[in-house]
Amino acid sequence: MEKYRVLLVNDDGYQSEGLLSLRKKLLNENFEVITVTPDRNMSGTSHSLTFTRPLKIEKLEENFYYIVDGTPADCVHLGYHIILNGEKPDILISGINTGPNLGNDIFYSGTVGAAREGTMFGIPSVAFSPASSKNPDFEGMADLAIKIVKQILHKGLPEKVFLNVTFPNIKIDQIKGFLLTRQGRGAYREEIKKYISPSKEVYYWIGGEEALEEECERGTDYTAVREGYVSITPIRLDLTDYRGIEILEKLSFLSIE
Amino acid sequence: MEKYRVLLVNDDGYQSEGLLSLRKKLLNENFEVITVTPDRNMSGTSHSLTFTRPLKIEKLEENFYYIVDGTPADCVHLGYHIILNGEKPDILISGINTGPNLGNDIFYSGTVGAAREGTMFGIPSVAFSPASSKNPDFEGMADLAIKIVKQILHKGLPEKVFLNVTFPNIKIDQIKGFLLTRQGRGAYREEIKKYISPSKEVYYWIGGEEALEEECERGTDYTAVREGYVSITPIRLDLTDYRGIEILEKLSFLSIE
Amino acid sequence: MEKYRVLLVNDDGYQSEGLLSLRKKLLNENFEVITVTPDRNMSGTSHSLTFTRPLKIEKLEENFYYIVDGTPADCVHLGYHIILNGEKPDILISGINTGPNLGNDIFYSGTVGAAREGTMFGIPSVAFSPASSKNPDFEGMADLAIKIVKQILHKGLPEKVFLNVTFPNIKIDQIKGFLLTRQGRGAYREEIKKYISPSKEVYYWIGGEEALEEECERGTDYTAVREGYVSITPIRLDLTDYRGIEILEKLSFLSIE
Amino acid sequence: MEKYRVLLVNDDGYQSEGLLSLRKKLLNENFEVITVTPDRNMSGTSHSLTFTRPLKIEKLEENFYYIVDGTPADCVHLGYHIILNGEKPDILISGINTGPNLGNDIFYSGTVGAAREGTMFGIPSVAFSPASSKNPDFEGMADLAIKIVKQILHKGLPEKVFLNVTFPNIKIDQIKGFLLTRQGRGAYREEIKKYISPSKEVYYWIGGEEALEEECERGTDYTAVREGYVSITPIRLDLTDYRGIEILEKLSFLSIE
Repeated sequence: MEKYRVLLVNDDGYQSEGLLSLRKKLLNENFEVITVTPDRNMSGTSHSLTFTRPLKIEKLEENFYYIVDGTPADCVHLGYHIILNGEKPDILISGINTGPNLGNDIFYSGTVGAAREGTMFGIPSVAFSPASSKNPDFEGMADLAIKIVKQILHKGLPEKVFLNVTFPNIKIDQIKGFLLTRQGRGAYREEIKKYISPSKEVYYWIGGEEALEEECERGTDYTAVREGYVSITPIRLDLTDYRGIEILEKLSFLSIE
Repeated sequence: MEKYRVLLVNDDGYQSEGLLSLRKKLLNENFEVITVTPDRNMSGTSHSLTFTRPLKIEKLEENFYYIVDGTPADCVHLGYHIILNGEKPDILISGINTGPNLGNDIFYSGTVGAAREGTMFGIPSVAFSPASSKNPDFEGMADLAIKIVKQILHKGLPEKVFLNVTFPNIKIDQIKGFLLTRQGRGAYREEIKKYISPSKEVYYWIGGEEALEEECERGTDYTAVREGYVSITPIRLDLTDYRGIEILEKLSFLSIE
Repeated sequence: MEKYRVLLVNDDGYQSEGLLSLRKKLLNENFEVITVTPDRNMSGTSHSLTFTRPLKIEKLEENFYYIVDGTPADCVHLGYHIILNGEKPDILISGINTGPNLGNDIFYSGTVGAAREGTMFGIPSVAFSPASSKNPDFEGMADLAIKIVKQILHKGLPEKVFLNVTFPNIKIDQIKGFLLTRQGRGAYREEIKKYISPSKEVYYWIGGEEALEEECERGTDYTAVREGYVSITPIRLDLTDYRGIEILEKLSFLSIE
Repeated sequence: MEKYRVLLVNDDGYQSEGLLSLRKKLLNENFEVITVTPDRNMSGTSHSLTFTRPLKIEKLEENFYYIVDGTPADCVHLGYHIILNGEKPDILISGINTGPNLGNDIFYSGTVGAAREGTMFGIPSVAFSPASSKNPDFEGMADLAIKIVKQILHKGLPEKVFLNVTFPNIKIDQIKGFLLTRQGRGAYREEIKKYISPSKEVYYWIGGEEALEEECERGTDYTAVREGYVSITPIRLDLTDYRGIEILEKLSFLSIE
């Protein structure tokens, strides 16, 4: 029987524990795994693609590559077109990420950007993240990830849709099940902190701590993981707001001047 | 009468002709304009936000700042929270960009990422781009941009929606009008080119030429500008594919194992 | 009469006040000035040369260029070989820098790295810096710089030697004169400060404050500017320690094993 | 007996074969080895020190660290002051580098920059490189490197002097011996190549091929390795050209105006 071929990417670099756990299990389960990652942590790089300079592919070992100073979307781009020579893999897996990608976080997320890039090429794609970066059980999460991967391979995904999957950060045997969710609020309480450099200059650092205890509406990714479920959010490629078109028409928005 | 306050950002840096044309006209039209840009071309950086280091704000002149090594979304973040001290501007304008942001291009676009960042903060936001980077008439486009800005200020925008506006690259007096469009195909014919460095190493460069003559479905941004209309696409913040949830439910996707 | 041709570079970028003051005076004095700078502050980049990616030259105005993401040595390299097409200028001027380059600072200094790069190409080269970054009188320093430039053009420099010039940070009419000096101690009291990022990670910031009041041996750059003199240190290209060869021979260093 | 403590750094990152070969042999020889490297290839970064942002130290394993986006000199700085807590190691070793650092190359060399940084802190320091990047025998070179390291530990180095050592790229048993040399010509035939990006923009790439067959004066590093000797060049910290001071005095250089 032929093996399923996986293009495995992430945004944390090739040393990421989440990536390596999933890679190992995929290999044990007899998948063919081609891994392509950034050379270091590229969290927060969203769907960036590098147009302003050429990129170099380095080979770590058989079927394991990294892109020097490359973004997650670069990894998908070069992984598919150059390393796989344009032969479509059966699935693109992004992750398992180091920290959460919930709600608004997914706009900034390189993990999610990579899954979108795969979807643009017509590859069924999925992004995996833990609900918290505090000691996630990557081994257990990798087991669950493989179940979801198999489901995608058996049932398929709607066209131009990929999945953003988040595992609750609890023991795997305490997980209550899987939920289809919508994008809710992010996992971070964001803030900007002021710093004074050693040479007395003012800097601002964007960031924030995970704030998993806060409230969020039901039905969302955030609430699902808080309540012990694996959150599966279908994400669309088409960004058009069709309802918005109707509202703007009713407002006679185009009668400009 | 009080002035409208504009937060003006871009992804091309503070020397961009498109930005400066629009800024000048806004000032002439008696808007209060606070400009915050990257220090150089940050095209392709999508919705990246810088978490891994602190950022420095430099003042060019009164109400004109740039962020050293900052992304477009960083400019919105620091512009709103630090420079404007958290006081919401009446509108966020991103652009006028140097080249087109159509269809799939908008995933990579820093210009569009900045407009999304503004929308996340509840600021009515709009991104402006020309349909081609070949000698766009930024003066004429800035006039049209101001008309659209006034329309947004008068009529408002639907909640969690921003506008991606593209001007056809023709003489302004030949423009046929405005169209509400959906996201179509990109403006670039993408490719990856192989390069050999002077020290004989292999590199790959992602890029592509503008290919404005190709076909695209009617009703899209791409077709609108090709036919001489200003394309106005409402872009949604919510990335959830609700139809996808229904399809996956029908497929019993959650019966995992 | 033919004009002297100057290749003017720096490490602070094209908006640097010190650079622009000197450029203006050089033009007023009827020099032909070709300016090539980094696109932003590249202080601390020493003699770095960019081998890992290709570089783009942008033209700001006639005879004024910057290199996107380029180092000071890149500016000299591309300025001489590409912009000047390999025609040797009469002199290479680096600066006026924003802060001091004294003693050990000159190892890290991009300003000094650029002057060394020029010397490697056989171009008479000089680096200019103020003794302090606190409100230097760049106008007055530019006047003095031009006098030194003329002296170099009239008298020449020893082979494989360039000058590192530092102006005391006092009123120009209070300057006591010029001194030939040796490399002494740096202008900064260095330290490493610990920072906690917003996401609670530990970072270290190398830096330090200027400490101009400290002691230093007589005859050095540091002491000269403290006492009100312009310091002129001849810097050698040859890094070999010939005395060290003799000492190691006496130690029978080569009787290895 | 107490172990000798080594601070081992490089400019190629922690995966460099040359570094790992030397590290393994040092550990086998019962040295205590604290390794601190950049997170990736930082060749060409000279003596750059990062002042413009804080740095993060990541631990790979016991006594093995890397600095995220850090330069070789950053590794020495943070290795000594933070990781070793300011306790001076017995020796600083930089390398074994991936390619040659001969003649003018050493101005650009991060490997040499790191050794200079160690010398500035009063640590006996040495940089090791092969004469060619074409299949160097790093195992054999590491054996020789350890002999030189022991010699430095036994005999000491002159004050403010470090060693730049280059191994000929031949079988170790064919090496003719060791030579004390002066800085000669570089190992690269430099050039700038023009490239057209996929979006039709002009770029220039600085680089060059190794050109080991060319002529060079006797007594230099270049000639030594060409003739089958290990080249040992003592490099001085003091950049002052004392002969230059005399020449300029004779020229009445200071009679300015």
